Amino acid sequence: MAFSLPPYHPPHSNQPPFLAAPPVAFKRLTQPGVAPENYHATSIYPEYHHIKKGEWRLLKETRMDCVVVRERDGSLSVKEFRHLKPGDLVACGRQENGEDGILVHTDAFSFQEDASQKFAFRTRITRETSFSIDYDQLYDLLSHERKHGFIVWVLGPAVVFDRDARDAFAALVENGYVHGMLAGNALAVHDVEAALFKTALGQEIYSKRAAPLGHYNHLDAINRIRTLGSIEKGVNEGLVKNGIMRALILNGVPCVLAGSIRDDGPLPEVVGDAYLAQDRMRDLARRATTVIALATQLHAIATGNMVPSYKVLGGNRVRPVYFFTVDMSEFAVNKLANRGSLAARSILTNVQDFVVTVARGLRKRRGGVW
Amino acid sequence: MAFSLPPYHPPHSNQPPFLAAPPVAFKRLTQPGVAPENYHATSIYPEYHHIKKGEWRLLKETRMDCVVVRERDGSLSVKEFRHLKPGDLVACGRQENGEDGILVHTDAFSFQEDASQKFAFRTRITRETSFSIDYDQLYDLLSHERKHGFIVWVLGPAVVFDRDARDAFAALVENGYVHGMLAGNALAVHDVEAALFKTALGQEIYSKRAAPLGHYNHLDAINRIRTLGSIEKGVNEGLVKNGIMRALILNGVPCVLAGSIRDDGPLPEVVGDAYLAQDRMRDLARRATTVIALATQLHAIATGNMVPSYKVLGGNRVRPVYFFTVDMSEFAVNKLANRGSLAARSILTNVQDFVVTVARGLRKRRGGVW
Amino acid sequence: MAFSLPPYHPPHSNQPPFLAAPPVAFKRLTQPGVAPENYHATSIYPEYHHIKKGEWRLLKETRMDCVVVRERDGSLSVKEFRHLKPGDLVACGRQENGEDGILVHTDAFSFQEDASQKFAFRTRITRETSFSIDYDQLYDLLSHERKHGFIVWVLGPAVVFDRDARDAFAALVENGYVHGMLAGNALAVHDVEAALFKTALGQEIYSKRAAPLGHYNHLDAINRIRTLGSIEKGVNEGLVKNGIMRALILNGVPCVLAGSIRDDGPLPEVVGDAYLAQDRMRDLARRATTVIALATQLHAIATGNMVPSYKVLGGNRVRPVYFFTVDMSEFAVNKLANRGSLAARSILTNVQDFVVTVARGLRKRRGGVW
Amino acid sequence: MAFSLPPYHPPHSNQPPFLAAPPVAFKRLTQPGVAPENYHATSIYPEYHHIKKGEWRLLKETRMDCVVVRERDGSLSVKEFRHLKPGDLVACGRQENGEDGILVHTDAFSFQEDASQKFAFRTRITRETSFSIDYDQLYDLLSHERKHGFIVWVLGPAVVFDRDARDAFAALVENGYVHGMLAGNALAVHDVEAALFKTALGQEIYSKRAAPLGHYNHLDAINRIRTLGSIEKGVNEGLVKNGIMRALILNGVPCVLAGSIRDDGPLPEVVGDAYLAQDRMRDLARRATTVIALATQLHAIATGNMVPSYKVLGGNRVRPVYFFTVDMSEFAVNKLANRGSLAARSILTNVQDFVVTVARGLRKRRGGVW
Repeated sequence: MAFSLPPYHPPHSNQPPFLAAPPVAFKRLTQPGVAPENYHATSIYPEYHHIKKGEWRLLKETRMDCVVVRERDGSLSVKEFRHLKPGDLVACGRQENGEDGILVHTDAFSFQEDASQKFAFRTRITRETSFSIDYDQLYDLLSHERKHGFIVWVLGPAVVFDRDARDAFAALVENGYVHGMLAGNALAVHDVEAALFKTALGQEIYSKRAAPLGHYNHLDAINRIRTLGSIEKGVNEGLVKNGIMRALILNGVPCVLAGSIRDDGPLPEVVGDAYLAQDRMRDLARRATTVIALATQLHAIATGNMVPSYKVLGGNRVRPVYFFTVDMSEFAVNKLANRGSLAARSILTNVQDFVVTVARGLRKRRGGVW
Repeated sequence: MAFSLPPYHPPHSNQPPFLAAPPVAFKRLTQPGVAPENYHATSIYPEYHHIKKGEWRLLKETRMDCVVVRERDGSLSVKEFRHLKPGDLVACGRQENGEDGILVHTDAFSFQEDASQKFAFRTRITRETSFSIDYDQLYDLLSHERKHGFIVWVLGPAVVFDRDARDAFAALVENGYVHGMLAGNALAVHDVEAALFKTALGQEIYSKRAAPLGHYNHLDAINRIRTLGSIEKGVNEGLVKNGIMRALILNGVPCVLAGSIRDDGPLPEVVGDAYLAQDRMRDLARRATTVIALATQLHAIATGNMVPSYKVLGGNRVRPVYFFTVDMSEFAVNKLANRGSLAARSILTNVQDFVVTVARGLRKRRGGVW
Repeated sequence: MAFSLPPYHPPHSNQPPFLAAPPVAFKRLTQPGVAPENYHATSIYPEYHHIKKGEWRLLKETRMDCVVVRERDGSLSVKEFRHLKPGDLVACGRQENGEDGILVHTDAFSFQEDASQKFAFRTRITRETSFSIDYDQLYDLLSHERKHGFIVWVLGPAVVFDRDARDAFAALVENGYVHGMLAGNALAVHDVEAALFKTALGQEIYSKRAAPLGHYNHLDAINRIRTLGSIEKGVNEGLVKNGIMRALILNGVPCVLAGSIRDDGPLPEVVGDAYLAQDRMRDLARRATTVIALATQLHAIATGNMVPSYKVLGGNRVRPVYFFTVDMSEFAVNKLANRGSLAARSILTNVQDFVVTVARGLRKRRGGVW
Repeated sequence: MAFSLPPYHPPHSNQPPFLAAPPVAFKRLTQPGVAPENYHATSIYPEYHHIKKGEWRLLKETRMDCVVVRERDGSLSVKEFRHLKPGDLVACGRQENGEDGILVHTDAFSFQEDASQKFAFRTRITRETSFSIDYDQLYDLLSHERKHGFIVWVLGPAVVFDRDARDAFAALVENGYVHGMLAGNALAVHDVEAALFKTALGQEIYSKRAAPLGHYNHLDAINRIRTLGSIEKGVNEGLVKNGIMRALILNGVPCVLAGSIRDDGPLPEVVGDAYLAQDRMRDLARRATTVIALATQLHAIATGNMVPSYKVLGGNRVRPVYFFTVDMSEFAVNKLANRGSLAARSILTNVQDFVVTVARGLRKRRGGVW
């Protein structure tokens, strides 16, 4: 079944009652990092701002829980509170139905009927839910996105704890199914540890044997990379001979490694400031047309907050952004499911099996050649 | 890597201190279903009873928490308390080191060194444990057992809730990897429902669409089978055209469907009496050389209690019985892990993925032909 | 805040379109245990059958997934398929809006506004949901039901694995908050084990110390009770000096112990036949005005299927039946939450804490005296 | 039962083979943030370094996965790799038995026999484990630590999502049972949201009612605090009238709020740099004699890595540091249980119930007066 993007239906903003709506009010800021009373907060949905009589302008990009700033050139940007500066003009108004000049458009895409019926059931995804169709549709989607989209993966460290899953993900990178990656220090640490010692946290990632003095392995991996100055040098100088980080670096796939309070090291590429890391992550997230988050609650929720449900392409075409969460825990996937978007899905399984299965399925689609 | 069974090491019962041990004491019962004080309870391990000076006899078969009865012909049988009859001679003595004439042999097999080291880590299997080697060793094992063993599967209903998993399991049956099945009413009900209506609990097992009045589907499935008189007739008369039950019946694979207080119907083949069901399950379990339990805590634990860690083959050769538990929940698999046998393993994943992956892996081993 | 039952609103069955509805059709059975085509299946909701022109009769009692039989005296009874006999007249028709003469009344009670708004959130109860109000309302409810209702508890064995929880539940029995109990063999086994040996599965229920040869304790407990012939004799003859079973027996509280394939023993009072156990459970369930299910997926779901959302009291007054599920697992409680009744609630916590907290809260309501 | 600290047993370092051990080797660093080959990495255990013939010096404080630096004054400090500077002298040697001049002392405390036996069972804490004794011993411990120790709590946001738990924790602060707190932005945000609007994420924390436009509440809470400049001003100027942050501030209890990539805002007190936050956290952690981590995997593991198993008091007395993890998930608590220290315990329950129960238990110990 060939994949096709669902059409986008703009709102009827040129009809009553929208014609009578006021333009959106902007207030000028005086205090840095502080929004005015009655500021308007964004969501993941397409949002139209009534700029002047009859002109409802779609936000080019958005994210959860930010504010809308009118720039000097008249364009609208969506900013985190912490980036607000004195003088910024911030959109105000909390009604989402247009009466404040702001229209939040929650039902913009006509997903195929089967999809829309199917998602009636999504409210309670459990370990007993059928996922066969999700794999098939994911193969369709990723085959399309490989050429026409931008696929961002969000990875917890579990993916590198298993040899086959680590190899499979590296193959996904090498074959063009990964356009950006968001992860933490631990993913890169244990990926490098596996390259140097074939272990993760001292345990061999295939045989599960404990390496002698294996609790030193991840520290040694960090220390050697720090000696060289970067993971990239570790790859280029032949220290890191396989794995996910190597595949990303050799294929020029951008990634953001965000630091956390759990980190050892950290590795040189890790962004230690949480909010700088957020900014870098959003730089990738705003390019995403599909996001797949594997076994990481922290990074998955962080990314979910940054990724809008739509993307404006060239020619003002609008398409949905797909968002998949894969985890073992109903609790974790349900946290994301509250996005309430038809384009969000959850699969409950072990991410090792998921990655191996997806790589095998995509490879088969391409006739077994990659 | 060709699979080979680990050698069995009998205990040194012809050496001191065993030579000085008394023969095991047997007491004659007077009250039905009641053991004498100081009765000896069995475990899953090989157990030797000192019958007469110098003769330590291995139990031909055993299970958890039963008692040993000396039959009139001198043989030893392992009986549930509820099957004890007045006149039965019951073995007494609670020391397991031979001093009561009973020797429990917990370390009987020399598993390969890698396996034994690996299992040092098994104490804490989590969702982040590497499972690649478990799949590979399972392919080795099942390829061996298909011809030389007896593979019993224990299935929760989740396997039939997903089209691909249901198809994959039916293929495992058709290709000789299933020699017995233990399950409950629900598995059979939703398997038949899928055959008749393509749904499970009213939801299509591929598209996830809700069928109109779909909550009647499983009741209608039950009612039609009850009209015919058996699932077997449903298969033979062409009502049940696909699925797991059909594969089992057409391939002559025995199964026990145990009833429970949750059941609708039940289907005619279901054994409503829990203890009769236990007896039937044990009849299958005692033939097992490998057991694989998928997503069912109740049946998995029940089976785990019935399956010993060893099997006596012809010529008094002794081999291990392998026991796999596959579930999404650490809690569930850890319950089984307490078996404490090197031959017990747990895999934490969604059983849908597990079944599809195992069928694919075994098919590949056989050159893609089945 | 004094507790009051929400009023019941009968449907407007004496108005169009109901006046034009046909009477419900009954078909006579020929085959035992098999319903006719187009049989009507019941739910947990109040259901009205159009018996003759203008007379819509409310089912006096109902349960999930059964059929409605018109008895010789004209009354309507709700029967499991397995109880159907040749000659029975079974109601047919699958529309629930009255057009087949059957009206399913899903919105019968006006719960207080806060409750109904609150339950808008119930769709996603998680471990992070606030439960303070649930405890408070439960104290209100149980204080009312103690005198005016019938409280049925459904217990998993975890409650007797902890000394304080076991003592607290026994106190609930002694003080009139338990009118019926549904459980399995394991609950009674480990409760008796605790009475005899202070252990559960060989571990002391307070100090967690392993008792020497403790794995014999539950078998010895079973064996001694089987020697006496019943738990009741064990209590009356002074063997069982404390615990939940003793409290139930001494206070004349009925209980059903349903057998399962996991059981050792079983204890004499256990009902081994799953469907006879279902019948006995339903005999208690049909008296219930409040049900509280603790840490048992099997028994909780079985009971949930048997308990209607309403109860017809004397004088044809109709009241809701409250249903609480308490478990650690989102998966388990969500299974029950699909009842879709405003009177169903879930609390995610350890049942040990739950029982101790509820006992303390109820005791405090009564001035600390019990 | 009065609480008493278990005695500390120093190793026999003045006996063979330790007398023959070499002094520990120190290497001088040349590259910042990079350890020399063969560096020694610390653990949570007491560790003795052989400084000169016969002088084995105990590390005054330690943590997981750091290195030991000999300062100019001859003292030994335990540093994160990222804090290493050129010229630092780093201890080398990986044998832990003294033969490299480094002795890791894993069995230093003689816990009471019952405790030590009990902990034989700790390897598999599950939701069915008995926790009565843990509560009782926790009351003993906290009553002692209130006066004689330093109790650090690590809090996930769940604690402020429930009115009773939030009130109970504030009472613990006010009554002296909280000497330091480690948490993230979210805890403080929703605590302030509750103070301002009685909601958490827009839902009332008692009634569970959805507040109108409630999704603005946490953003408004952040924005108002950012307007004032700090939570502390919010408290002092009367905006924040109740809750945990207010109790901490008014009682002068230090806390570290560590930023993360999930944060909105952040609040002014939040430390955005993960590694600066680590340093601040460790400043508190090194004072801890008891740590209690509630429903937060990230912060709990981060803290677990920073907290040694012992503390050196005045007069070179050495005592254990107690570490409790409370969570709903076996996965989460098992991650911490690998500390392998007898002083580490896990309780599986909802932290709301835990906090309310502990506050009630401690209050009762003090005669109900606080």
